[in-house]
Amino acid sequence: MQVSSLPTSPSELRGLIRDNRLVQPTGGFAPGHVQANLAILPKEQAFDFLLFCQRNPRPCPLLEVIENGDVEPRIFAPGADIRTDIAKYRVYEHGNMVAEVSDISEFWRDDLVTFLLGCSFSFENALMKVGIPLRHIENSSNVSMFITNIPTTEAGQFSGPMVVSMRPIHRDKVVRAVQVTSRFPAVHGAPVHIGDPEAIGIKDVTQPDLGDPVEFKEDEVPVFWACGVTPQAVAMNSKPPLMITHSPGYMFITDEMDEDLAVL
Amino acid sequence: MQVSSLPTSPSELRGLIRDNRLVQPTGGFAPGHVQANLAILPKEQAFDFLLFCQRNPRPCPLLEVIENGDVEPRIFAPGADIRTDIAKYRVYEHGNMVAEVSDISEFWRDDLVTFLLGCSFSFENALMKVGIPLRHIENSSNVSMFITNIPTTEAGQFSGPMVVSMRPIHRDKVVRAVQVTSRFPAVHGAPVHIGDPEAIGIKDVTQPDLGDPVEFKEDEVPVFWACGVTPQAVAMNSKPPLMITHSPGYMFITDEMDEDLAVL
Repeated sequence: MQVSSLPTSPSELRGLIRDNRLVQPTGGFAPGHVQANLAILPKEQAFDFLLFCQRNPRPCPLLEVIENGDVEPRIFAPGADIRTDIAKYRVYEHGNMVAEVSDISEFWRDDLVTFLLGCSFSFENALMKVGIPLRHIENSSNVSMFITNIPTTEAGQFSGPMVVSMRPIHRDKVVRAVQVTSRFPAVHGAPVHIGDPEAIGIKDVTQPDLGDPVEFKEDEVPVFWACGVTPQAVAMNSKPPLMITHSPGYMFITDEMDEDLAVL
Repeated sequence: MQVSSLPTSPSELRGLIRDNRLVQPTGGFAPGHVQANLAILPKEQAFDFLLFCQRNPRPCPLLEVIENGDVEPRIFAPGADIRTDIAKYRVYEHGNMVAEVSDISEFWRDDLVTFLLGCSFSFENALMKVGIPLRHIENSSNVSMFITNIPTTEAGQFSGPMVVSMRPIHRDKVVRAVQVTSRFPAVHGAPVHIGDPEAIGIKDVTQPDLGDPVEFKEDEVPVFWACGVTPQAVAMNSKPPLMITHSPGYMFITDEMDEDLAVL
């Protein structure tokens, strides 16, 4: 389906996704609305994971937690069903992917706790709105991501390095980029680093660990933001018996507006 | 001890408190440093309480969680011991206070999880710094607190109305008060309401449910902020088998600076 012919209402989009009539990455869907990363874990691991998010709010900006026994994101998307309303899920057992499915009902258990985490789409919209172009979006490629030497604060079984996303920003726009993204702490917020990649353990900024490489133009500076891949990577490291995530790019579309998450 | 003759270093102050040489309310101690509310609960209740705080960040601004088995606030006060470094604690069993003590070592169990929550001292300092006087501080009285009709978002066994603190602010300073406190979401942040007390279920703004009444001068408006009493009240409602808090006014003094909590 062409993005331009899609409904713009989050609930209509979730309806199409639920009926398997819309199976494509969600970037650009329901403009202005918050999209979320998904992590589902058994209750046994949930306290430590919740604590990990509380201790590491930049890489793990928690939007909503759905308690075990429930499947409805009552705050961000009342009426939705987290088992069906994402187009593609990945199911992991002990850290190994065992399925990629459009519906996780068959894997559902009453002890599963659902975490919805902020995603960079929200702050990327804010950047573009103030005239800061984003090359990976212009190129329709994935953002460059790097595993850094910045430690996260561990919680129980969860620990590991911070993963960051990197965007080349013209040096005249760097201050504006900091200001604009600072307004959105609930979706990663301000950059964690500006400039020298080596200072945060990145050897070659043209060779990302995840995502696609991106070209630098004259007078562009690498700017690094905490990335929502961090909590998934950290959780996977601990090889939980079961973990379910969205497939990369296939996000959960919420009813909330990006601007409602702004602090000022 | 006179406040003026006290050391200003948080760790020295905690040392005096640990040795029972300093037993008085901590308002004004270690200026510029964050002071924290305390709530200690068994692990059995900890996930729901953590989730309650995540869902209600204004009344429950979580600064740090110390996992069961540990007593050191490694982030906000490395080297401190949460069992001894507050001057007065209250111990509750099934919602009833059973002791008020200067040391909780005898009540300590390996399954206890400690929550440190932001306190209004930080944003009151910020208000006074920009020339907004606070009458309850001028009068050396307790701030007026009210139980509102604003619901919190429940989590498991925890639910109940939001408690707010109220400060009379001159109408010419109300906007500035919103701006200044908006910078500190980690210590309750912006007001939850300005003006008409009845709109949030308060019948008589001169008759607080908790704390002391306060006089209004000409052209002063009641401004209401979410209050850290909320999580304690909500937890107590559920009558947990054991809960330990600080005694009102006897806060935990951390090493962190108020300004380090500012978002912008």
